[in-house]
Parts: sequence; C-alpha cells; structure tokens
Amino acid sequence: MTPVLKDLVKALQCLPGIGPKSAQRAAFHLLERNRDGARRLARALEDAMTRIGRCEACRTFSETPHCRICDSPDRDASMLCVVETPLDVAAIEQALDFKGQYFVLMGRLSPIDGVSPETLKLDVLERRLAQGLVKELIVATGTTMEGEATAYYLKQMALHANVTPTRIAYGIPVGGDLEFVDSTTLSHAIQSRRTY
Amino acid sequence: MTPVLKDLVKALQCLPGIGPKSAQRAAFHLLERNRDGARRLARALEDAMTRIGRCEACRTFSETPHCRICDSPDRDASMLCVVETPLDVAAIEQALDFKGQYFVLMGRLSPIDGVSPETLKLDVLERRLAQGLVKELIVATGTTMEGEATAYYLKQMALHANVTPTRIAYGIPVGGDLEFVDSTTLSHAIQSRRTY
Repeated sequence: MTPVLKDLVKALQCLPGIGPKSAQRAAFHLLERNRDGARRLARALEDAMTRIGRCEACRTFSETPHCRICDSPDRDASMLCVVETPLDVAAIEQALDFKGQYFVLMGRLSPIDGVSPETLKLDVLERRLAQGLVKELIVATGTTMEGEATAYYLKQMALHANVTPTRIAYGIPVGGDLEFVDSTTLSHAIQSRRTY
Repeated sequence: MTPVLKDLVKALQCLPGIGPKSAQRAAFHLLERNRDGARRLARALEDAMTRIGRCEACRTFSETPHCRICDSPDRDASMLCVVETPLDVAAIEQALDFKGQYFVLMGRLSPIDGVSPETLKLDVLERRLAQGLVKELIVATGTTMEGEATAYYLKQMALHANVTPTRIAYGIPVGGDLEFVDSTTLSHAIQSRRTY
C-alpha cells in the first residue's frame, strides 16, 4: 500500500463501525469506482464541520444561531420535549404532528462515562424553565438505565421550576406480539391499561 | 435536518455498505465527537483521489508511474501472479515470501456486468507475456464462477504466448473441519491428495 492510500485507510476509521478491513475495502471501492463521490464526500465533510454549529436555544445541530424549529413562530413554547439526540428530533417530527419545541441533550447522564449535568448543558435548560414560558416538560429520553436516570433528574428540575413533567408511555410496540415482549414492558403495559 | 447536514448524509452513502440510516448516524457521530477526524478524512480523500493512479506495468494503485513492487530490482520477472484486486496483492504479500511480480485485473470477466477482456486491460498483459520474460503465469483469481472463467481465459492467453499457466490449489482451508466443507471442495481436495 502506498503512503497516501494508508493515510486514507486510517482516516476512514473515524467513521463508526468501520474497522481496518472495511476501511481498506471502502478506500479501494472509492478509488476504483467512485472518485467523484469521494471528492463530493470530502467537500461535504469540510463544509459540514465548518458550517454546522449548535442551536443556542435547543442545542441541536444548526447552521444558524437558532435552528429552524426554535425560530419558527408556529411552535408552542409551552411544551418542551427533551430528547437525547438530533436523531430523536427527526424521528418525532416524522412520526407525529408535534407542535412544541425541543431540547436536545446530546447524550444522557452517565457518571461512569463522565457525562454530568454540566456536560449536557442542563444549566441552559434550567434557565429556560425559569423564564416561565414552558408549562409541560415532555421527557423523551430512552428507556435504558441511563435514560431513566436522566428522566428522573429532569423530573426534579421541572418540579423545582413549577413545570409539569411528563414521561413518554411504556408499552407494547405497535404490531408486536405479546409473547416476544419482555416482562418489565408487559407489566408496564398492563398497569397502564385504559378503557377504549 | 439542515441542508449542509443533508448533503453530508447523502455524500456518506458513496461508501460501500453505508445506507441512509448509518450515514445519518455517522454524520451525527462526526459532528458531535470527532470533527478533527472528519477534517482529516476530507483531506485524505481529496489527496488520495488526486494523487493515486494506476501502475503502468501491473495496473494496481500507485502514486508513481510504476508501483513499488514492479520497480523493485529484487523481484523475479519470470513469475507473474494474476489477481483480481490490490487487496489480493496485499494478502499474498502478507502471507508468504513471494518474489515474483503481479498483474492486477481490477475485476474479473463477467459478460453480464459488461466486464470484458478490454475492461480488464488484458491487452496490457498480452503484450507483457509477448516480451518473453515471463515463464510462469500463476493464476490466482477467485474460485467463484467468474473467477474460474477468467482463469480459463488467462490459461489460453498463457499457452498462446508459450508461458506455463498454473492455478492456485483447491482444498480444505487450514484449520477447517471436513464436515463443514462443501462437497465440490472436498472432492477436489481428495483428488489432489499427495504423499507426505
């Protein structure tokens, strides 16, 4: 392998899930079949890293000081939905007609990994709640151990600021068979049953 | 998603095995955790696409008109090993102390996919064989259907140029149990048995 090729194979390994073998395969693929695509990727990477920052209000990725959602006059500032990543925002936007705003943690509390309330900029959220516009804090962090710990912390923050905390519902995924659902989920689903 | 982010997610899909979902995950990962790595990757891509060409003698990737192996005075020009990709060259170089030279097809004959002898630059190989330096043509294409068809074509080329064609051995992979080997391989392995 030439030095330039070695550099490329090494650089490709910054991508998640790409090890030395797949990096080699990717480098050869680009050189052999898609040099234009590789050049486009180089420009897109440079462009994105230079131009994409964080929204000052909700912390999601944004090219402008405030993101499109935070800037929109059609959004209801009284409902604030807290999620872990921008992917969750995209998922919620695609799934339903949610008209509130978001706060993106860019992670979840995990003392073991050194992720503290400061890392997640929860002081920004705290100041937002203190302004008094937010009435309901919809906590949509994951239902993993860390997601639940984060949800508990956010609940305390909300109560402290006189904001109603709500948590997304646990239950059986739509289209799922009961027999394949774990018992904790099943127990939650039955306890949270409702008339229909 | 912002337009710049959308461009990045789209551009990442030029990588083999990266679809829309993993491209999104990769883009977010780079923006959130590894902007330096992403910038390095952008430079490495641009550099590789600009500087890496093909070796005039063996057709492998090279930054110089002739690659390191073809340029080396220590290599035996009488043994020419034909492989499908530069990955195969790397694999052989790592596996054993082969002192011959290579010819890299950058593919294999496959009329259905429009890969003809011209696509594989077999005319370059033909001229090389006609020079009379090569005594043995070691055909190390894959043992797939197309690899075998290519091997047959190369054998005819070798015989036509008065060069001895040899084919890599079929058999049980080292460390393999017989019960897991397909019957064609097993039959080849038993027919090619030798005293020891």
